[in-house]
Amino acid sequence: MQMLDVIIKKRDGGVLTKEEIEFVVKGYTDGSIPDYQMSAFLMAVYFRGMTDEEATTLALAMENSGDVMDLSRIKGFKVDKHSTGGVGDKTSIVLAPLVASLGIEFAKMSGRGLGHTGGTLDKLEAIPGYNIQISPEDFINQVQKIHIALVGQSGNLTPADKKMYALRDVTGTVDSIPLIAASIMSKKLAAGADGICLDVKVGSGAFMKTLEDARHLATLMVNIGKMCDRKMTAILTNMDEPLGFAVGNSLEVIEAINTLKGKGPKDLRDLCLYIGSRLVVDAGLTDSLEEAEKMLVENIENGLALQKLAELVEAQGGNADYVYHPELFRDADEIIPVYAKTKGYIKRIDSYHVGRASMLLGAGREKLTDEIDPIVGIVLNKKVGDYVDENTILGYIHSNGKNTNEAIEMFANSFEYSDEKVDVKLILDVIR
Amino acid sequence: MQMLDVIIKKRDGGVLTKEEIEFVVKGYTDGSIPDYQMSAFLMAVYFRGMTDEEATTLALAMENSGDVMDLSRIKGFKVDKHSTGGVGDKTSIVLAPLVASLGIEFAKMSGRGLGHTGGTLDKLEAIPGYNIQISPEDFINQVQKIHIALVGQSGNLTPADKKMYALRDVTGTVDSIPLIAASIMSKKLAAGADGICLDVKVGSGAFMKTLEDARHLATLMVNIGKMCDRKMTAILTNMDEPLGFAVGNSLEVIEAINTLKGKGPKDLRDLCLYIGSRLVVDAGLTDSLEEAEKMLVENIENGLALQKLAELVEAQGGNADYVYHPELFRDADEIIPVYAKTKGYIKRIDSYHVGRASMLLGAGREKLTDEIDPIVGIVLNKKVGDYVDENTILGYIHSNGKNTNEAIEMFANSFEYSDEKVDVKLILDVIR
Repeated sequence: MQMLDVIIKKRDGGVLTKEEIEFVVKGYTDGSIPDYQMSAFLMAVYFRGMTDEEATTLALAMENSGDVMDLSRIKGFKVDKHSTGGVGDKTSIVLAPLVASLGIEFAKMSGRGLGHTGGTLDKLEAIPGYNIQISPEDFINQVQKIHIALVGQSGNLTPADKKMYALRDVTGTVDSIPLIAASIMSKKLAAGADGICLDVKVGSGAFMKTLEDARHLATLMVNIGKMCDRKMTAILTNMDEPLGFAVGNSLEVIEAINTLKGKGPKDLRDLCLYIGSRLVVDAGLTDSLEEAEKMLVENIENGLALQKLAELVEAQGGNADYVYHPELFRDADEIIPVYAKTKGYIKRIDSYHVGRASMLLGAGREKLTDEIDPIVGIVLNKKVGDYVDENTILGYIHSNGKNTNEAIEMFANSFEYSDEKVDVKLILDVIR
Repeated sequence: MQMLDVIIKKRDGGVLTKEEIEFVVKGYTDGSIPDYQMSAFLMAVYFRGMTDEEATTLALAMENSGDVMDLSRIKGFKVDKHSTGGVGDKTSIVLAPLVASLGIEFAKMSGRGLGHTGGTLDKLEAIPGYNIQISPEDFINQVQKIHIALVGQSGNLTPADKKMYALRDVTGTVDSIPLIAASIMSKKLAAGADGICLDVKVGSGAFMKTLEDARHLATLMVNIGKMCDRKMTAILTNMDEPLGFAVGNSLEVIEAINTLKGKGPKDLRDLCLYIGSRLVVDAGLTDSLEEAEKMLVENIENGLALQKLAELVEAQGGNADYVYHPELFRDADEIIPVYAKTKGYIKRIDSYHVGRASMLLGAGREKLTDEIDPIVGIVLNKKVGDYVDENTILGYIHSNGKNTNEAIEMFANSFEYSDEKVDVKLILDVIR
């Protein structure tokens, strides 16, 4: 088989066979197919797309390009969760201990955040001592013992995805639904969970700009997972504003802790209960979503969910005092209020630009080698639907002096207003 | 400027600016833009196309990526000719001496043939001693002295095209009209002629499958040339059969010699007179195409055209005796007649497969490093429109023992038949 023939077949709109897709993934992983042929292929896929069957074959070939986690030693129902990348998205830090506090095994491996704001790993590292580098062996042991582990990818999992993603990133071939689906699902399948919940963000700042595209991506991923006997849920959530109020690493951890105490923002709490109750049903603890939600609310109220977060932090070497006393987190040098420039109802808060503003302050990476400042970020004071005038504080910039004015300007400009009342809807659809 | 942004702009259907196109060509030539970004870009161009203005800018940027020939020392009107690649196409070997015999300066630089059959250079090298490696200085001196030179590219002409063509060849991005136009025209412009005639082949075996595509390509190239003050002619010719009867290097030289003696195949003679008379008019020797053709026919009949070929061969170190005594060319070890398998009118002779058969015998290269056998090839006995039955010889295989049976089979299978009479039309259109 020749790579050139496969490129031309896809370029001309052909449907690739299993053998052809496996040839491409294997050849690219072992280096026998050069970058320049792979990037031409990926651009052809960008334009021609893939059938669901092709995308599934691609995901499985990528899953099997390296090691695959064997979680069979963990006896219970193992769950995992993935988000396509939101701003202010600290869901995992709430959801994982909440669900694990009911005895469900939350075994999550994350990649490093390459978005504007840090990923889950960067947020957890804001807790002094928290270690994300755990061997596969210790990862399994920890889940067996305390039902929860939130770690970085270790071992040689999905090397094809690592290589392909790095290439897509520099060749304009990121925004392709079958390639996104195969990339995400190859990692989730290789990580070995029985139940997987996907949060697909929709909106102008997200990968998926339209509900239609998001639904296509979600359905494709759900079908790939089901074909591999995983219990799948995908929810489509609105990214027309950041999730919760806090954007920035320690700021988001603090908000997650508050949410586990029952004092978090409504949208974040609702989302965690919505996803969590589906995972509880998937795990077989009850048949009723209502019942499942009650169980979760109970563990917020009785403190078990927060206690589970403390156990997680301690198991991974972090200082669990921060969980019970979030006031231990240092404040930034300056906390600057930003006022509205006009009056009206907030119609939309451009998440992408809020994320960029936070990155400018030092909360995220522009390049992989950039250092993150765990303390800086932005805390919103108002959200979509709120009425504001020139005396209203939109939010607070937490700065250690880096790009402060630029961040203030960008943050203020990320608000759009309306003269009429505005409705907010976070969860747009669920696909199972 | 970032290459990623240029890739995404083209991917999304944008029209690139002059600065962006020059950035791409310069960066790819100097190595600052890597192959993998260039191939993604080329695939995006494949899908999105280019405006005529973009293609023109690309051609000029590629022309100026290296040295450019300065032919100003040659006083007369300098002409050049290019074909998009036909089988049995020995037009240049007839046309150049024919036109030069009227005092028009024929200054042609060719690339090596990468097609199935050899290119013009390979054919000329079938004449013992003929040297295609001439310095730019000697090239100009020779044209000044005898009005003709047919040489290989020397110096550092259009390095961008060399690099881009090699990449397109292995990434499925050859068949793009703006990329083909820019590639051809960058070389023709850099070679410095005042008048350029392009022969664009049309048919299933050619780059351009349809008359519409061929017309688009031809018009684009003519416009690029005109924008640079060159006198341009493009003719569209049918590739539903090889040109003339001979396919193979020395076999084609012999046929070219016969044509210069007035004893060549009608289609080849007609084509050379058609193109030639336009070049004669462009050179200003007369305003009338009829008059121009008369002048050319006269120089065939009085022997001056053949004499010019002999002068060319001698000037470039070849043995001119072969021009006057083509029987000096050695015969292949075996000359095998191939009979028709059925009866009917020949409807089409698949040029691509005739060329492949000839290549199998050793007349062409599969890889750039392959050695060519100058003697082997195929001589057709029948052409489109002829009636044949099982006793009719379709042609003769000239073999030195390499892949003989395979070539015979492929040659015989390249004929398509019809029960009804078939019309032949070589020249489909002319664009000036």
